[in-house]
Amino acid sequence: MRFAVSYRIFAPSMAEARDRARAIALEQTVEVPAEIVPKGYIADEIVGQIDEIGTEAPGQFRARISYSPDSVGTEITQLFNVIFGNSSIQRGLRVVGFDPGAEIARRFGGPRFGIAGIRERTGRERGGLIAPVLKPMGLTADALARIAYLCAKGGADIIKEDHGLADQPMAPFRERVEKITAAVARANAETGGRAQYFPNLAGRTESLDGNLRFARDAGVNGILVIPGLLGFGLVDRIARDDSLALPVMTHPAFLGPFVLSPDTGFDHGMIFGTLQRLAGADISVFPNVGGRFGFSADDCGQIAAACRATDGPGRAILPSPGGGMSVARAADMAAMYGQDVVYLLGGSLLAQGEAVGEAVTTMRRALDAADAAR
Amino acid sequence: MRFAVSYRIFAPSMAEARDRARAIALEQTVEVPAEIVPKGYIADEIVGQIDEIGTEAPGQFRARISYSPDSVGTEITQLFNVIFGNSSIQRGLRVVGFDPGAEIARRFGGPRFGIAGIRERTGRERGGLIAPVLKPMGLTADALARIAYLCAKGGADIIKEDHGLADQPMAPFRERVEKITAAVARANAETGGRAQYFPNLAGRTESLDGNLRFARDAGVNGILVIPGLLGFGLVDRIARDDSLALPVMTHPAFLGPFVLSPDTGFDHGMIFGTLQRLAGADISVFPNVGGRFGFSADDCGQIAAACRATDGPGRAILPSPGGGMSVARAADMAAMYGQDVVYLLGGSLLAQGEAVGEAVTTMRRALDAADAAR
Repeated sequence: MRFAVSYRIFAPSMAEARDRARAIALEQTVEVPAEIVPKGYIADEIVGQIDEIGTEAPGQFRARISYSPDSVGTEITQLFNVIFGNSSIQRGLRVVGFDPGAEIARRFGGPRFGIAGIRERTGRERGGLIAPVLKPMGLTADALARIAYLCAKGGADIIKEDHGLADQPMAPFRERVEKITAAVARANAETGGRAQYFPNLAGRTESLDGNLRFARDAGVNGILVIPGLLGFGLVDRIARDDSLALPVMTHPAFLGPFVLSPDTGFDHGMIFGTLQRLAGADISVFPNVGGRFGFSADDCGQIAAACRATDGPGRAILPSPGGGMSVARAADMAAMYGQDVVYLLGGSLLAQGEAVGEAVTTMRRALDAADAAR
Repeated sequence: MRFAVSYRIFAPSMAEARDRARAIALEQTVEVPAEIVPKGYIADEIVGQIDEIGTEAPGQFRARISYSPDSVGTEITQLFNVIFGNSSIQRGLRVVGFDPGAEIARRFGGPRFGIAGIRERTGRERGGLIAPVLKPMGLTADALARIAYLCAKGGADIIKEDHGLADQPMAPFRERVEKITAAVARANAETGGRAQYFPNLAGRTESLDGNLRFARDAGVNGILVIPGLLGFGLVDRIARDDSLALPVMTHPAFLGPFVLSPDTGFDHGMIFGTLQRLAGADISVFPNVGGRFGFSADDCGQIAAACRATDGPGRAILPSPGGGMSVARAADMAAMYGQDVVYLLGGSLLAQGEAVGEAVTTMRRALDAADAAR
């Protein structure tokens, strides 16, 4: 059973769009001209096949091209390569849909936990989750642990490190992980709560595996990964590892160019929803409407829908809008995202200093009130 | 000593461009508003500093922002994160320059071999290098090894696998590596030549290290890596590994959106030249003018210049235009790229079937004649 990718093709005519679709079917597989494709298995199975092509709008067409699971093997990176590797370099071409089919769905199981698993681990049975962000870069591990402790005391569901906390000398990854895990555990013991700590996975490539095991042994509750920099293969590797059994939250850094231009890259829901699920993310962070990045409410709605779609790929996951959330906007946000969502809270929260825990509590009350009012 | 990134900012006025630059300096480091940045070390050292800002054209400004090496640590991925992690998600912002400064230059040594090292390994002292591509996907390892043998006999300098050859059942990575290494060695023994075989690194994330060692032990001469999918950290990891000591050729798959829109992402020379060198690539593949991808001669010239700049970062490397090269165009290409270049030859060569070796020889003669005529 083949899998299928839907592309939006910008072309002056259907004839040209069809030619482009044929070229994509070759480019993404054999990468040779049609006339020298070996007959038999390669021509019949490996080369992409145009399932259908239609007009969306003047100058804008939609082609569904199917590919063989044989072209992928078992690597998520090669799946992404077939979806859009070389064709990502062509103007006027955007990936707008993906249908894994039975075989690719079987090979790539997706998220280990998903929405239900994260709710179980946090103990937050209903309502949006609140996730303060530990920062700024430059603080010591002790200072970050203090913020984490206060946030956990205040009722945070997930305490996430800033994606800029790597392995810098001010707060090296392992020192941070030990101190913050201890601080959150102490707060949880005092409150009876279950605040979850997600450090940002750091280290050179050859250190990532050791750092993952270190984090697991230290008792972290999940891990933040930047697939745009570390690769989607790493997300897949963590999600599949029974010995880690850690939820993965993914961060959008370095992925901006994939969505910013409307006639290239991926639709917002594809890259911040579908591809994250395929790779195995349980929570997908993206820039919220009203924050610093200019995503529209439609963009964010598309991402949330792709994260939470009940028909796959894999388990439904939690969209995690960053920025734009505040007590004043809690009702708007709850109306927009519903309950299955993780709100990141950064600068606005940290401005509270030692009162950051109270700020988390206030946010929680505002969100519960907003959810109750709906 | 700080490092600096030059950004092109699209804004209606200098005042707004300056505000944007200030926001970038915060976004790429502390990611909190200016008023809550802790005074002292964080405000003075960690936060980005606007070195200069000027007008390039109406509505277009150029800001040079410097950052502390402390914000990076020792990870190439975190260096890229500081250069453009979150800011990659902003419209109207493009990275156009990079100055590593002494400290970052010391931490990231760049390519192990560079132009001189590759010339030494291939024995090609002058003139452009010829690199046939093994494909299409779907052939068996034996069939690919046959093509490799013929190309090596014909005088190929580097025999590169198609970036779509991963670990598929038709020709698994390890089987391919063994058979093609043997085939190229046999041809080299027969000709006295030094054709170099670069397989495409494949495997799930947890298998990459083992596959690298397997390839080294099998006797490959270099390795093709797709940083857009596997991460630039992997390039860095290979380049620094004395026990591998393998040249790295990088492939542009999945990086298209970083250059296609003129007001976001990176300049062509930055992402296909400077960043590749920083990560440690010895040869950087990009789509040639006149091929299937619409890069202009200016784009390609900018990439070649960034690859070969003698003032770093790290050693000068070989630009490797893919597509657009033929016997008929040899003189044009030699005029455009000079001698320090690796020409990829794909579909046009493979159309020759069993005569592919003769086609390589013919291409070599055409290129030598073109070089001699200049």
